[in-house]
Amino acid sequence: MTSRSDPENQRSRRAEIIGTGLIGGSIGLALRSLGWHVTGSDSDIGRCEQALSLGALDAVGEDLDAEVVFVATPLESVPSVARTVLDDVRRGDPVVTDVAGVKLPVAEALRHERFVGGHPMAGSEQVGVKGADAELFLGATWVLTPAQNTDPACFAHLRSIIASMGAEVVALSPAEHDALVAVVSHVPHLTAATLMNIADRASEEHSVLLRLAAGGFRDMTRVAAGQPTIWPDVCAENSDAIVETLDLLVSELSKIRDKVARRDRAGLLEALDSAATARRALPARAVRPEHLAEIRVPVPDRPGVLSEITALASGLAVNIADLEIAHSTEGDRGVLVLVVDADSAGRLEEALEARGYHATTGRLS
Amino acid sequence: MTSRSDPENQRSRRAEIIGTGLIGGSIGLALRSLGWHVTGSDSDIGRCEQALSLGALDAVGEDLDAEVVFVATPLESVPSVARTVLDDVRRGDPVVTDVAGVKLPVAEALRHERFVGGHPMAGSEQVGVKGADAELFLGATWVLTPAQNTDPACFAHLRSIIASMGAEVVALSPAEHDALVAVVSHVPHLTAATLMNIADRASEEHSVLLRLAAGGFRDMTRVAAGQPTIWPDVCAENSDAIVETLDLLVSELSKIRDKVARRDRAGLLEALDSAATARRALPARAVRPEHLAEIRVPVPDRPGVLSEITALASGLAVNIADLEIAHSTEGDRGVLVLVVDADSAGRLEEALEARGYHATTGRLS
Repeated sequence: MTSRSDPENQRSRRAEIIGTGLIGGSIGLALRSLGWHVTGSDSDIGRCEQALSLGALDAVGEDLDAEVVFVATPLESVPSVARTVLDDVRRGDPVVTDVAGVKLPVAEALRHERFVGGHPMAGSEQVGVKGADAELFLGATWVLTPAQNTDPACFAHLRSIIASMGAEVVALSPAEHDALVAVVSHVPHLTAATLMNIADRASEEHSVLLRLAAGGFRDMTRVAAGQPTIWPDVCAENSDAIVETLDLLVSELSKIRDKVARRDRAGLLEALDSAATARRALPARAVRPEHLAEIRVPVPDRPGVLSEITALASGLAVNIADLEIAHSTEGDRGVLVLVVDADSAGRLEEALEARGYHATTGRLS
Repeated sequence: MTSRSDPENQRSRRAEIIGTGLIGGSIGLALRSLGWHVTGSDSDIGRCEQALSLGALDAVGEDLDAEVVFVATPLESVPSVARTVLDDVRRGDPVVTDVAGVKLPVAEALRHERFVGGHPMAGSEQVGVKGADAELFLGATWVLTPAQNTDPACFAHLRSIIASMGAEVVALSPAEHDALVAVVSHVPHLTAATLMNIADRASEEHSVLLRLAAGGFRDMTRVAAGQPTIWPDVCAENSDAIVETLDLLVSELSKIRDKVARRDRAGLLEALDSAATARRALPARAVRPEHLAEIRVPVPDRPGVLSEITALASGLAVNIADLEIAHSTEGDRGVLVLVVDADSAGRLEEALEARGYHATTGRLS
């Protein structure tokens, strides 16, 4: 079913979305806000109707005139769903992409000139289309994984559509993508869960243990609170890269263990020093560093401090691009880290100093 | 040198602090705000004068009338400094404590009825007395580690002094303390540093890697940015407990690795499920849970959102006890987690809903 009878949409660019959950729904909202006509479907018809009523879709069904088809279904069904679309005779001759978190198995199953794998590095704690948001991809990194068979024109076409939603496109080979997300996402997640389980078991014996768990521990284990349901599939599909990275982690932790056992102070200091240098160079947010600055403000635990500082920023027309509280390893006090436009950092820092805060500003690099 | 000639201080309770850095200076400020007379010294005379000028001390030197002596020097000098004080003939017959992060070596070196080891679980990103704060210990956990020789009256005396600074005292044996901080502090710190080093090395080959490092990775590695200088000593002094915990971590990570390699979906789901349950039960802040509630608000990346929400709370006279942005594993979007008085959570949630936010409230338990 399409809406070709609606004359107002005759000139609209047309997209189809299969799978109208959080990501599919957000793509629908983003494209519709740009004037696209969006048709969608879902194996769960109720979810699809919800997407329609939330304004993420113009119509339910398939659109043979769509110029792009987003397959936003769970990982394991991507190959068969995308294959059906690619094999269809469609007037739109669409470029087909997916949004799964592992790319190599999909790429190997779908060697087609009009298929380009994709992975928007954007998520939300919300589950399902209710959490969909037209701005989900603004400033987010969206990896595209063209394969050898991919038609460069299809890649360029898809790239421009994704960039129009505000995402920053990074092109990687499917294998490279999978190796890198194992390092920065999959293995850290498994490690956080493992640390949490160890502490939880120890706390059965020592009930006081979790009272000693200060900000640093909470920061490290926070991701382990997320929905676990997607992880078994991710681990199964990316098992080679995850196993390789876990082997490396186990080997590096064993080296640290040996340094501790040998009381090798110099070796430990070297490892911790290089980590501190690398971590300080990691911006609080993945954005163009030339435009932003990071202001660090030690804050006491006192009601109204956050309100005072954010209101101060608003009053000075300083946009806070991101904010976090960096806890120290021990204790609950924090340093408020504000990411703001580099041009306006100076005036916010001055205003903070005038109020008695000790702010320090660094450019993100 | 004492200030006994000052008649106004005749009735003040008297404390001595040896080592006037961040912790020593904060103890001085806290006690002076409670009306104590505080004398202090430091191997670095400049630091001591700075503490005096910042109001952390009344006088420089030693105070033979002090009823309590805080040894707030680096770990390795605690035994000799505390031994000297304990061996002194002092009119005040003081209880002596320290603030080092590892307790067993100190306890073994100082078997004395008037010595009680201590560890305030409070820190700051600031280094030195400049960062000292009278409120550093408000609501913080302060571990005291009485040993077999400790006089119970000395323990009770010290406990009441520390509670008067607003800290919550937890009593543990020195060995128990060291085992628990290995689990919730030392090994998580070493793991964060190791993950950061692995990612940093991988990014030399794949320069794009750190662009894929989203909020979850940043949360996990944040503590690795801290000052590394104290860690070699901590690792050397607590090597047994750290080695034991690292062995456990390596063994648990190897089990996870095998589950991934075997594509054992059920086993992985079980591990991740139990971690998620445990992490969700960990409050955002170690405070009396019956009084606080946690409000979670998904927030778009839009200037003014934080200011709007914190101002809304201020306007409703709702105190924000803590705030964090929980990033998802992928992407930069966040969920704002506000910790507020349980009694006022309802009216803030209503006001948030009225502005179009989807807030959910949970009691901390």
